[in-house]
Amino acid sequence: MRLVVVGAAGRMGRMLIKAIDQAEGCRLVAAVERLGSPALGADAGPLAGLPPLGVTVTGDPAAAFAQGDAVFDFTSPEATVAFARLAADAGILHVVGTTGLEPAHLAALAETARRIPIIRSGNMSLGVNLLAALVRKVAATLGTDWDIEIVEMHHRMKVDAPSGTAVLLGEAAAAGRAVDLAEQRVAARDGITGARDPGTIGFAALRGGTVVGDHKVIFAGAGERLELAHVAEDRSLFAQGAIRAALWGRGRAPGLYSMADVLGLDTL
Amino acid sequence: MRLVVVGAAGRMGRMLIKAIDQAEGCRLVAAVERLGSPALGADAGPLAGLPPLGVTVTGDPAAAFAQGDAVFDFTSPEATVAFARLAADAGILHVVGTTGLEPAHLAALAETARRIPIIRSGNMSLGVNLLAALVRKVAATLGTDWDIEIVEMHHRMKVDAPSGTAVLLGEAAAAGRAVDLAEQRVAARDGITGARDPGTIGFAALRGGTVVGDHKVIFAGAGERLELAHVAEDRSLFAQGAIRAALWGRGRAPGLYSMADVLGLDTL
Amino acid sequence: MRLVVVGAAGRMGRMLIKAIDQAEGCRLVAAVERLGSPALGADAGPLAGLPPLGVTVTGDPAAAFAQGDAVFDFTSPEATVAFARLAADAGILHVVGTTGLEPAHLAALAETARRIPIIRSGNMSLGVNLLAALVRKVAATLGTDWDIEIVEMHHRMKVDAPSGTAVLLGEAAAAGRAVDLAEQRVAARDGITGARDPGTIGFAALRGGTVVGDHKVIFAGAGERLELAHVAEDRSLFAQGAIRAALWGRGRAPGLYSMADVLGLDTL
Amino acid sequence: MRLVVVGAAGRMGRMLIKAIDQAEGCRLVAAVERLGSPALGADAGPLAGLPPLGVTVTGDPAAAFAQGDAVFDFTSPEATVAFARLAADAGILHVVGTTGLEPAHLAALAETARRIPIIRSGNMSLGVNLLAALVRKVAATLGTDWDIEIVEMHHRMKVDAPSGTAVLLGEAAAAGRAVDLAEQRVAARDGITGARDPGTIGFAALRGGTVVGDHKVIFAGAGERLELAHVAEDRSLFAQGAIRAALWGRGRAPGLYSMADVLGLDTL
Repeated sequence: MRLVVVGAAGRMGRMLIKAIDQAEGCRLVAAVERLGSPALGADAGPLAGLPPLGVTVTGDPAAAFAQGDAVFDFTSPEATVAFARLAADAGILHVVGTTGLEPAHLAALAETARRIPIIRSGNMSLGVNLLAALVRKVAATLGTDWDIEIVEMHHRMKVDAPSGTAVLLGEAAAAGRAVDLAEQRVAARDGITGARDPGTIGFAALRGGTVVGDHKVIFAGAGERLELAHVAEDRSLFAQGAIRAALWGRGRAPGLYSMADVLGLDTL
Repeated sequence: MRLVVVGAAGRMGRMLIKAIDQAEGCRLVAAVERLGSPALGADAGPLAGLPPLGVTVTGDPAAAFAQGDAVFDFTSPEATVAFARLAADAGILHVVGTTGLEPAHLAALAETARRIPIIRSGNMSLGVNLLAALVRKVAATLGTDWDIEIVEMHHRMKVDAPSGTAVLLGEAAAAGRAVDLAEQRVAARDGITGARDPGTIGFAALRGGTVVGDHKVIFAGAGERLELAHVAEDRSLFAQGAIRAALWGRGRAPGLYSMADVLGLDTL
Repeated sequence: MRLVVVGAAGRMGRMLIKAIDQAEGCRLVAAVERLGSPALGADAGPLAGLPPLGVTVTGDPAAAFAQGDAVFDFTSPEATVAFARLAADAGILHVVGTTGLEPAHLAALAETARRIPIIRSGNMSLGVNLLAALVRKVAATLGTDWDIEIVEMHHRMKVDAPSGTAVLLGEAAAAGRAVDLAEQRVAARDGITGARDPGTIGFAALRGGTVVGDHKVIFAGAGERLELAHVAEDRSLFAQGAIRAALWGRGRAPGLYSMADVLGLDTL
Repeated sequence: MRLVVVGAAGRMGRMLIKAIDQAEGCRLVAAVERLGSPALGADAGPLAGLPPLGVTVTGDPAAAFAQGDAVFDFTSPEATVAFARLAADAGILHVVGTTGLEPAHLAALAETARRIPIIRSGNMSLGVNLLAALVRKVAATLGTDWDIEIVEMHHRMKVDAPSGTAVLLGEAAAAGRAVDLAEQRVAARDGITGARDPGTIGFAALRGGTVVGDHKVIFAGAGERLELAHVAEDRSLFAQGAIRAALWGRGRAPGLYSMADVLGLDTL
């Protein structure tokens, strides 16, 4: 499979280049960076700690997409919307790991997904997507006399809170209860909070060191707790998930897909 | 509902007496202890830290069962098999929380369950039974490249390892993988063990202090882990589960039921 | 030892009455509630699930203190300042477990402690005070390239965040680093936070179910973490700590003491 | 500092080569493998995923040690005893991370340490050694009414249990209590164990996936627990600890040193 990476010089871009190099049946055919990036013109291999691959980083995504079967995109919401349209023009699969998408961005992707298959997830790992499926089921099974709390920890360089994955898990919990996360979400507690409101879903974000990503969803009932957690040991996990998505998405009909689709978790 | 407690002076017996006293629609009508117990002839209330209930502890289970709709039994395997037959003779529901049952005991219960409904579980809490359902699903979804480990901690007085609940969770994992737990179980590790055999299910038991019961099932894959845990804060949980089972079992057809049946978790 | 409980009808008050009843060498001689409390005039025993003790709940603390050797006070900051003065007038030991004390309250206690011994702690358990001593040492040993995060979970009825114990642990960390907690504290994270500031101490509060009190202090370095945690299984722990404090404080010189003094942890 | 690595083609050997390459003031001058190793004659750089370093893997440790200031040794007990003597002959520092050393091996190292400085530890990370210091203190502070349990998890390829680090932590606990670990150690629990013996120290080993190394020491008392844990996220941690040890050991007097000496934790 011929693959293109956008945001090639970023942390996830380099991780993707490395993962493609190691994946059977996959080949990097183009690497894209924004105009003005110091990486333009360099070979993509050394960016990822590899020998030269003969792929020069380019600032022309349209030309790059014309050579590929799929594009990997872990960039920013605005860039992702633009890349989706270019991918549709080229008729290739778009695999999106970008986080922080607002409803307007999602609507734009859904529109573009009429022309090509787009696979999007806030977290590409098998474990997190399986966890989300479990959380939805448990939330649907237990009443609101079981309180839901979501706590995550990430490295000190992470700039937003809670993590996209924590939000994904919160949405799974809200879906299980058939409520709207925006209405039930308690973002962080400090000061005189009063007793906990039944039905709310609490979030807490820890930051420190080099933690790749820990997430725990707690269901706290009377006298007992159920705790469902995921530990990511290695960031390459997310790149491997993207490759799995690309291989699954090859030749699919247009549409907006999730990792639950890729992993067959909808039938869980 | 008229309820009988056997093993009334034991730790779970006293917990059951107290829980019945607090449960709506339930009433203790008889309390049974083995012949020779110093509790015989005493009122059951003070055993459980309650005022006198007007129920005298008796050594005659047959007479006791004749007064009830259901009997609660957290005793020993041999006693449980005998109590099941007496319950069948009296035509009342048998709720069994006894642990350590061997295949021969289970066969005897199954035989007796042709005459009356018997509800049996190694753990009567909602959380643990829900956890077991999740473990079965996850084990069925993930391949044996995800290693399964089960670790539990209980108070220092517990005399066996691993706990009945850990075994219940191990059986759920084995059922998900369609394997036999007895063949895959690795009981404890010490010394030169060699690398882990794929497909095995490991157990570890911690003992100390006053821990009511913590259980964790770990699915460890390449670069990520999924951890599903239950924390029991209070032993009264198990008594409440027994009451829930009794209320559900009232008027059921004969048969051997599980807490998954009581809690409707089979359709999860 | 003759003991007085103020706030006798509250959750901690009842717990204290029960613990005194079970402690060797201790006796409840008076129980105080605020004027207007429905508990006034009742016997203190049944409040705590005990048989009558022959101690009637009174609204007159001065008369109550005159009968005792020490008073147990888990009430509110203002009430505690007033009770301290009455204890000083009566010349008895004051054991304070009240949380939420501001600098002005602490100054008032320090002033009163010139006349009597006052033992004050945000958490009376041995484990938490030992944990605080460890946190201080670790924070003093590790540089600010190890990030400190404090996360706690309590039951759904708790009305403030973070817990008094979390603050106590944060103060221990700040003392170890010789910084001011107020300047380094990051209360809760939500939204675009930017990367973590070196030297800050983060707090997160989870609420749900019936959790008695879990606290964890995380030191997150490059590639490794140290996690120091305390789990309170049972609220009676705090009452037992208060009794330990009273027995230690008997006959002490006036002064403001901590549980670290009581437990001999200063020489750790 | 001129450094030699023995066992250069093994997992820790390659990690050490990489860490030396990145450490300021350090330079790899020789790499040793056993006779017959396929790595003999190859350049050490590519073994560690680095460009060629101009250092050829050799089977002659004596010649290699003659070029260095210190040797890094994470091999096997017998090899380590032999390397210590060669290091002494060459008059260079010996940094030993080998695990599984029996008393006879330790005695041989102590003997050799009359001639050169030897720094030995079952775990070279700052976090684990700090944890061990804390465990010793806590064990010395708390009585045997607090039960001690040590649980660890490592990747599926680990061939022994419990880990060397778990043993190191158990020894710290035993030292704090002034008892002999060999007499108090409970290796693993399975079957009818009876109630826990006071004063024992329990071990449990979990194996699965790619876990680098998690360790937790639990002190379980009546109604409360203290849990002290370490999480290693990255194996390079141990190589970095070895470099820190080498830099500290440069120019030291002969003697057998620990990481607690290197890290200044003895005065904790």
